[in-house]
Amino acid sequence: MTLQYSFELLGTFFFAISGALVVRDQHSDLFGATFTGFVTAIGGGTLRDIMLGSYPLVWIGDIHFLYAVLAGVLTAYLFYNFLLGLRKTFVLFDTLGISFFTILGVEKALSLGVRPEIAAIMGMFTAIMGGVIRDVLTNETPVLFRKEIYATACLVGAILYLVLLNFDISRNLNLVISSALIMVIRLVAVKFKLSLPGFRR
Amino acid sequence: MTLQYSFELLGTFFFAISGALVVRDQHSDLFGATFTGFVTAIGGGTLRDIMLGSYPLVWIGDIHFLYAVLAGVLTAYLFYNFLLGLRKTFVLFDTLGISFFTILGVEKALSLGVRPEIAAIMGMFTAIMGGVIRDVLTNETPVLFRKEIYATACLVGAILYLVLLNFDISRNLNLVISSALIMVIRLVAVKFKLSLPGFRR
Amino acid sequence: MTLQYSFELLGTFFFAISGALVVRDQHSDLFGATFTGFVTAIGGGTLRDIMLGSYPLVWIGDIHFLYAVLAGVLTAYLFYNFLLGLRKTFVLFDTLGISFFTILGVEKALSLGVRPEIAAIMGMFTAIMGGVIRDVLTNETPVLFRKEIYATACLVGAILYLVLLNFDISRNLNLVISSALIMVIRLVAVKFKLSLPGFRR
Repeated sequence: MTLQYSFELLGTFFFAISGALVVRDQHSDLFGATFTGFVTAIGGGTLRDIMLGSYPLVWIGDIHFLYAVLAGVLTAYLFYNFLLGLRKTFVLFDTLGISFFTILGVEKALSLGVRPEIAAIMGMFTAIMGGVIRDVLTNETPVLFRKEIYATACLVGAILYLVLLNFDISRNLNLVISSALIMVIRLVAVKFKLSLPGFRR
Repeated sequence: MTLQYSFELLGTFFFAISGALVVRDQHSDLFGATFTGFVTAIGGGTLRDIMLGSYPLVWIGDIHFLYAVLAGVLTAYLFYNFLLGLRKTFVLFDTLGISFFTILGVEKALSLGVRPEIAAIMGMFTAIMGGVIRDVLTNETPVLFRKEIYATACLVGAILYLVLLNFDISRNLNLVISSALIMVIRLVAVKFKLSLPGFRR
Repeated sequence: MTLQYSFELLGTFFFAISGALVVRDQHSDLFGATFTGFVTAIGGGTLRDIMLGSYPLVWIGDIHFLYAVLAGVLTAYLFYNFLLGLRKTFVLFDTLGISFFTILGVEKALSLGVRPEIAAIMGMFTAIMGGVIRDVLTNETPVLFRKEIYATACLVGAILYLVLLNFDISRNLNLVISSALIMVIRLVAVKFKLSLPGFRR
């Protein structure tokens, strides 16, 4: 099992946990939680692959991703109070998810022959669009419009990965460094409530 | 005309009626109702085919589906007060729609060579995603988060169909039995206000 | 550079401006505005191409569209107060966008061999779906449900284009005439607050 594949299954698992935990309010039955976990985990990669015309979709071609989603939802169910008690848990799992998925999305897009600018967008989409679709379905304000730096952290990490490709470092190291940058930016932004400047001056 | 094809056109017709009736509130002009009828009827199959990379989309390759939608919207328009007066009409048309579409979606997915787990999900998506997209567009809480068992009924029917495939019964009989199970589960759930256990214990 | 290509880049630029200006309320950081500009400009064509199975997507195959989006967002940023001060600016840019995109969408669909009915729908989708996706993401009532004639103007223009194809006029002239009809219908509808008859009689 390659590092990339491990990260992909782990990212799916983390995202499914964060997606299932999100339903604590109005949408709270077993199916609803499983569905939001599923959508959060596979939505971004699905949109990326559809936009790139890359078939079969990852989770359709490899059943392990569906199992990773179900394992994540089950974990969220079994440790519900524990996980939710930790106020920062959701942010942590979500941050792990977006960090891994951004870089994996960039790599996937590059392997399909698109330009770096497009690959950066696809990396960000892979990371955030599952959560955006989940938020749209549950009538929440999509994560990408929330104040703390979120999608922008993914974009910055994606660009770092693309820049480092030009240097003599291993792919695995690049994967780790660029993911770590996204985690750091996001966690620092949450901690210190950092946000981007407004569009209206 | 095969039984499958009749069911597909009928499901489209029923869904278009239910979709057009839904706009009784704020979104009520002729175009809005036609659009919600259209989206409700073709949204699920469209999403399924895009996810499976199956082209052309059903309604693009066969113009009869567009006519079935328009016939449904026209029926809803002509018999508006009559249909809406029957409080349960919407539920009935919608239930017919999801029952047919689930099994047809499973069959379509299987014919494209995916695993049974994926086919079950695709069957459910075929049935519910048109309504989900409609609800998202009209700012309603998506059907799949409403209390009475809905998407879960589709999943159960899809699984029954997949199980019965291993037995020596005709495809048409299987189609009828599995669709009927979905109808029964859904109507009983609505009648007795049955819902799944909550995710939070 | 053909007239069609100029119109396509111009439409993308106009739509990006209108999409970025829309975020003046709650969703107002630099990333949010860029994202809504991007989605507004490329959402409709993306949905059309995905539905028609036409790859690569326009903006993925030709990087100039991404630059047109960024130019539009930058223009909206630099001339924000000026553009917003002109109360009618948003409507104007949006109208230019939908007019061009409708006809270009019809042409693209026809070139992929679909029937005229489907091409008309695809033209309308190209024009309105970027705005619809933007509105869904920002929790607004989608443009297609607003009172003044909007999507219907696109449909009418698309049908005129399809009809004129049977007459001996040049493609460029047809493009201009049909786009102009959409602009006129839309601007007259906004000016005189015209709307379609309701679905409920």
